Amino acid sequence: MKINQYFLELKDSYLFSTIAKKAAAHIEANPNAQTLRLGIGDVTRPLAPVAIAAMTAAVADMGVAATFKGYGPEQGYPFLRDVIQNYYVGKDVTLAADEIFVGDGAKSDIGNILDLFAKENNVIIPDPVYPAYLDANIMAGRNVYFIDGNEENGFLPMPNALDVKPDIIYMCSPNNPTGSVYTREQLKIWVDYAIENSAIILFDAAYECFITDPSLPTSIFEIEGARKCAIEIASMSKMAGFTGVRCGYTIVPHELNFDGGNINKMWNRRQTTKFNGVSYIVQRGAEAVFTPKGIEQCKENIDAYMANAQIIAQTMKDLNIWHVGGKNAPYVWLKCPNNLSSWDFFDFLLEKANIVGTPGAGFGAKGEGYFRLSAFNSKENVTEAMRRIKEVL
Amino acid sequence: MKINQYFLELKDSYLFSTIAKKAAAHIEANPNAQTLRLGIGDVTRPLAPVAIAAMTAAVADMGVAATFKGYGPEQGYPFLRDVIQNYYVGKDVTLAADEIFVGDGAKSDIGNILDLFAKENNVIIPDPVYPAYLDANIMAGRNVYFIDGNEENGFLPMPNALDVKPDIIYMCSPNNPTGSVYTREQLKIWVDYAIENSAIILFDAAYECFITDPSLPTSIFEIEGARKCAIEIASMSKMAGFTGVRCGYTIVPHELNFDGGNINKMWNRRQTTKFNGVSYIVQRGAEAVFTPKGIEQCKENIDAYMANAQIIAQTMKDLNIWHVGGKNAPYVWLKCPNNLSSWDFFDFLLEKANIVGTPGAGFGAKGEGYFRLSAFNSKENVTEAMRRIKEVL
Repeated sequence: MKINQYFLELKDSYLFSTIAKKAAAHIEANPNAQTLRLGIGDVTRPLAPVAIAAMTAAVADMGVAATFKGYGPEQGYPFLRDVIQNYYVGKDVTLAADEIFVGDGAKSDIGNILDLFAKENNVIIPDPVYPAYLDANIMAGRNVYFIDGNEENGFLPMPNALDVKPDIIYMCSPNNPTGSVYTREQLKIWVDYAIENSAIILFDAAYECFITDPSLPTSIFEIEGARKCAIEIASMSKMAGFTGVRCGYTIVPHELNFDGGNINKMWNRRQTTKFNGVSYIVQRGAEAVFTPKGIEQCKENIDAYMANAQIIAQTMKDLNIWHVGGKNAPYVWLKCPNNLSSWDFFDFLLEKANIVGTPGAGFGAKGEGYFRLSAFNSKENVTEAMRRIKEVL
Repeated sequence: MKINQYFLELKDSYLFSTIAKKAAAHIEANPNAQTLRLGIGDVTRPLAPVAIAAMTAAVADMGVAATFKGYGPEQGYPFLRDVIQNYYVGKDVTLAADEIFVGDGAKSDIGNILDLFAKENNVIIPDPVYPAYLDANIMAGRNVYFIDGNEENGFLPMPNALDVKPDIIYMCSPNNPTGSVYTREQLKIWVDYAIENSAIILFDAAYECFITDPSLPTSIFEIEGARKCAIEIASMSKMAGFTGVRCGYTIVPHELNFDGGNINKMWNRRQTTKFNGVSYIVQRGAEAVFTPKGIEQCKENIDAYMANAQIIAQTMKDLNIWHVGGKNAPYVWLKCPNNLSSWDFFDFLLEKANIVGTPGAGFGAKGEGYFRLSAFNSKENVTEAMRRIKEVL
C-alpha cells in the first residue's frame, strides 16, 4: 500500500505544545506567580442559558421512544437551517436553506471542502493566518502561495501582491491572529478579482460576531458578486462559546459553477458520503442560540470579551506599541517592543510579567516580530495582565 | 479553479430516497394499511438511562464557568479513551490509549482515513456491502475491485477470488447488509494475505455488539498479526443507539508502517489538522455507555433487536427461503422468492403486505435478487410483519 507522500512534507507544528510546555515549566518554577493566560484562542465563559435549556431538553428527548431521534439529515435539521437562514436576513443576505450545511465546526469544513478541488490548483493563503489552511493543502499536494500581511497594509493583503494565477483564495476576516477586518470596498476588490480569474474564495467568518462597526461586512455575501465565487465557513465556537460543543455551518451558493461541476451539489455529495450530520442534541442547542433571546445572551459574552479587547488595545496605545485588532475582533496583534523576536518577547512576558501570549511567528513567516494577545479571559485577569505589562515595559 | 473531476464519475444513489418515495406514496394511497418499516438500518429504542444522566450532567457542566469545557483533545478525552481501552480488554485485546481515536461516527472516519493513502492503490471492496466505501474511493479516483459475495461463500468472500495486487481491503463483519460474520479462521486468512501483500485492511466493526456466538471474533485485533495490517473502525451507533448522538472510534495500531509512513502518526496529524474533536457532552454520554451498568443497559436494547432478528430468521426458515444473518447481526439477508428481482420483491412486499424492506441491489451488483430485512423495530411490529409475510408467500 502506498501512502499519501505529501504527508511527509508536513512540518511538525509545535506552536501550542511549546507554549504549553514553557507555561507549565514556568508555573512549576513559580507556583505563586499567578501566571495569566492570554494565549490560546479559546472561550472561557459558560454557554448561554437558552442553549443549556435546549440541550437539556434534547437529551431528555433521546431517553423516550416517542421523541428519540436516530440518523438526522447529513446537512442539518431544517429547524437549524431555518434559524441560520434568518440570521443572514439580519445581514441583508438572502440564502436558500439548501445552501446552508450544518457541520461539526469550521476546522472540519475548511479541511474537508478541499475534497472538491483538483490537486492542480494554486492556493493563495494570507500570512500570517490560522495554520490549518496551509497544512490541509500540503496534505493534498497543492502549490501554496502566500500574500503578505504587514504594517503597511494593516495586515490586510490585497490581490495586487500576487504574480500567479489564483485558483483557491483563503480569506479570514476578522483575521485570526491579527484581528484586522476587511472593509466592504476591499472585499469587493477581492470578489471582482476572484471572478475575473475564475477563482474560488474560501471565506472564514469564524469571528464575524465580534464586528461592532456597522460599516464593516460580517459576511462575504454582503458583497455583490460573491455568490458566484465564494464559500463562507462560519462557526458557533466564538459566537456562542461552542468550542467544546462543536457546531458550525458552511454556506455554498447555488451559483458556484466551476469547470463542469456545481459546487453546492458536490459538497452535498461529499457530506452525504463522508459525514453523518451533527448530534441532534448539539443542533437543538445551536437552534436556541439563534433565537432573539439566544443572540442577546450570547451578546453579553461577546461584549465582555470585547471590553477585554479594548483594555488590551488601550494599553498598547498608552505604551506607544504598534498594533491592530481589538476593535472588531477578540485579538490584539502587536509589534514586539525593542525589536524582539516573537519567541524572545514570549519568554520576556512569561518571565518578567507571568503572562502567556502567542508568538506571531507561529502563524506564518510574516508573523515574526509580532505577538497575539487574546481577550478570552476574565476582565479581572486581563486588567491585571495589562497592569503588569505596563510595569515591565 | 479546477474541480476534482472524479466527483463527476459518481453515480447518484437513489436507494434510500427511492424507498422513501415509494413508501410515502404507498402510505398516502393506503392510509389505514399500517405500513411497517423494516428497511433502514437505524435504531428505534431510546438511549440507555446512564447515557441520558451523563449527558444531562455534561450539559449542566457547560453552563457554569468552573466546569465549562472549551476545545478538547482532537483525539478524544482521556476519560473516554480509557473506557474504550478497557472495553477491548474484555475482548482480550490490548490497546494503547493513543491507538484509539474518538470520532463523530464510522461514516466520517471510513471516508476521512482515505486521506492517508495515495491515489495509486488498488481498493478491494466486498459486494454487496455498505455503499459509502465505494463512493469515497471513486471521489479519490482510485481503482476499485469487487470480491463477490454469493450463496456458495455465504456472502463471506475470501481472498482467493482476487487477481489484482490488493492495497486497501475493506471488510465489514458482521456484514451490512448480509448479517454474515467471518470466523476467526477466515479472518486469519485475510490478515496473512494482507501482510503478504503489504496491504492494509479497513475493518468496519460497526455491528460487533450483535455477536453472541463466543467463537466469533468481535475485533480484527483478536487475530494474530492484525496489528501489522489493520485499522478498525467502530461505532456507538448500533451498540448504544447513538445514530443521532454521533460518536465512534477508530483504532490505529502503532505497528502500521507502510511506504515510509507511520499510519498512527499520519492519522493523528490528519485529525489534528482537519477535525476538532467530538462534543464534550457526547463524549460524557459515550463514557457512561462503556461502564458496566451502561453495557448492561445497552445489552437490553441489543437483546431486544436480536429477538426480532430471530423472529425474522425463523420465519424465513419456516418458509424455506434461503437466508443468512439474523444470528449475530440485526439483519436478515434473503433470496427473493420466485426469482423476483430485488425491486420487484420490494414492490410485492409493499403492495401485498404493507412492509418496507431494502432491495439487495442497492448494496452492489451481487445483491441483485436478494433483500434485507432489519430487526430495528418493535417486537410487535416485527411479529406482525412476519405474520403478513407468511400470509402472502
